[in-house]
Amino acid sequence: MSTGSTQSNLASKQALTVVGSIAIDAIKTPFGEINEGLGGSATFFSAAAGLLCPVHVVAVLGEDFDLQDLAFLRERGVNLDGVEQRPGKTFRWKGAYGQDMNEAQTLATELNVFQDFNPKLAQHHLNSPFLFLANIQPQLQLAVLEQVKEARFVAADTMNLWINTARETLLEVLARVDLLVINETETRLLADESNTVQAAKIVQSLGPKTVIVKRGEFGSLMLDGDTFFMAPAYPVNQVLDPTGAGDTFAGGLMGTIARAGHVDAEVLRRGIITGTTLASFTVERFSVERLKTLTLDEVQQRYAHMQALTHFPPLAL
Amino acid sequence: MSTGSTQSNLASKQALTVVGSIAIDAIKTPFGEINEGLGGSATFFSAAAGLLCPVHVVAVLGEDFDLQDLAFLRERGVNLDGVEQRPGKTFRWKGAYGQDMNEAQTLATELNVFQDFNPKLAQHHLNSPFLFLANIQPQLQLAVLEQVKEARFVAADTMNLWINTARETLLEVLARVDLLVINETETRLLADESNTVQAAKIVQSLGPKTVIVKRGEFGSLMLDGDTFFMAPAYPVNQVLDPTGAGDTFAGGLMGTIARAGHVDAEVLRRGIITGTTLASFTVERFSVERLKTLTLDEVQQRYAHMQALTHFPPLAL
Repeated sequence: MSTGSTQSNLASKQALTVVGSIAIDAIKTPFGEINEGLGGSATFFSAAAGLLCPVHVVAVLGEDFDLQDLAFLRERGVNLDGVEQRPGKTFRWKGAYGQDMNEAQTLATELNVFQDFNPKLAQHHLNSPFLFLANIQPQLQLAVLEQVKEARFVAADTMNLWINTARETLLEVLARVDLLVINETETRLLADESNTVQAAKIVQSLGPKTVIVKRGEFGSLMLDGDTFFMAPAYPVNQVLDPTGAGDTFAGGLMGTIARAGHVDAEVLRRGIITGTTLASFTVERFSVERLKTLTLDEVQQRYAHMQALTHFPPLAL
Repeated sequence: MSTGSTQSNLASKQALTVVGSIAIDAIKTPFGEINEGLGGSATFFSAAAGLLCPVHVVAVLGEDFDLQDLAFLRERGVNLDGVEQRPGKTFRWKGAYGQDMNEAQTLATELNVFQDFNPKLAQHHLNSPFLFLANIQPQLQLAVLEQVKEARFVAADTMNLWINTARETLLEVLARVDLLVINETETRLLADESNTVQAAKIVQSLGPKTVIVKRGEFGSLMLDGDTFFMAPAYPVNQVLDPTGAGDTFAGGLMGTIARAGHVDAEVLRRGIITGTTLASFTVERFSVERLKTLTLDEVQQRYAHMQALTHFPPLAL
């Protein structure tokens, strides 16, 4: 067997497929604004994960989209064969943030071609051992799960809109995923419980063995089996635009898992800290600007800083 | 030299004095309510620190106060010689919490004997090498600092009321303390800066070498010199009453410092995690109920759990 085919075997063992959105964002924050910015869950996710493992994107975009905007992903080795260009306009999101950058105010959502998105997974998607269902309609997440027959590691994200309008379908999805990555507010909403620790346990009882609760600038917590893990956010000096932080986080997490080729308690923790690190770069600039130039070296340095930031000695009594 | 006098030497090297309030609280939370509950910053502080080092309390209370309520502190070795009983009623606070237990709504404040509180430090207070100025009027904090001539380690807390109404005096206090322990909202208010990382730096520039920002259920962060430390809160299953959590945290922190007999980066981190651990017990019951029966063994177990909760491996690329 040649080295080449060994590498390609390794690559297929580490392949990660993401089904999500590619969007054009208009964003206003206290520190500036951007129009026609590249956005979407699959975009941030694959920009992050693409630094760590082979990534396949399944998404849809419109005729108004300049494919050149995705060139940096291709250069990072991200496979875009599953990105379909269709007649019509690309999914557009317009949002604003106040001084409290933790919550976006949605000003406009135009689904456009995303409205009729019907993700069809090709063979190389079906073969990939790791799958991430980004925040899209639970009906579509379910449609993807129907196509995936073999046992594999599946993670998903969701949002308040689906919890409120498509709870039953969402519950079907939750029963079939291994890992859920979800915002704190949405964890509480889904569980109908205001204590986050209890809410995570309730969400876990709906299906996923592992629940990771994203708390924005306050970090994240994981409930994995019966074990909790608490991670702070990286202390960022200036948050220019928090858009995409959660998807970047998920990309760093799933990229770490796929790169390891397996999931265990240590890999999950390493994934959370890698995701935290990657997200801290995303928020320092608008859109994917910072992710575009980001290198693994920079990620490694900040990861090491996360260790220094969180270390404490044993109790000496 | 007898063992007895060596111990008493050690004890005086570790002595911690707190100037603060003793109060009678009426509290309502979504999980119950309490009337005539023991409260006050000095109470929670000394209940926590008293498990770790010799503590001296300087405070005032009224004729309506049953001194038997402080018996558990005395049994813990807390010196109450500096607690003055004066004609009139004890300081009373009435507060309520909604589903978001992070912020109290003050329903009534009766200063009573606390209004004319004029803390006078006795010689054994002046000799104690560690001093905590709990959240009282900056004018009183300053009056205490005037009595303290020798170099010693001084920490303080404050609140939005003083930031808004006595900023100039508070700035004089800040210029003279080594460590400030302060809520996140109040850090932002004091610094007039919404980014907490930046706000901590601004507050540090006002005087204290070390700034510890309390974030309630999201933990805390420390800026010590030019180094940050991030600590999560302990994941508590049910928060019954968050009253006193911040004062307990400060008590655990300062108790750890006093017990060590010196301050350095590691002692501060150990102090923060000890404070976090102690505060997690406080919120599990109303008032000081849980602190009353708490043992160092229980603190040690939960501290060890904090290590397990936050550990993550190096990045393996």
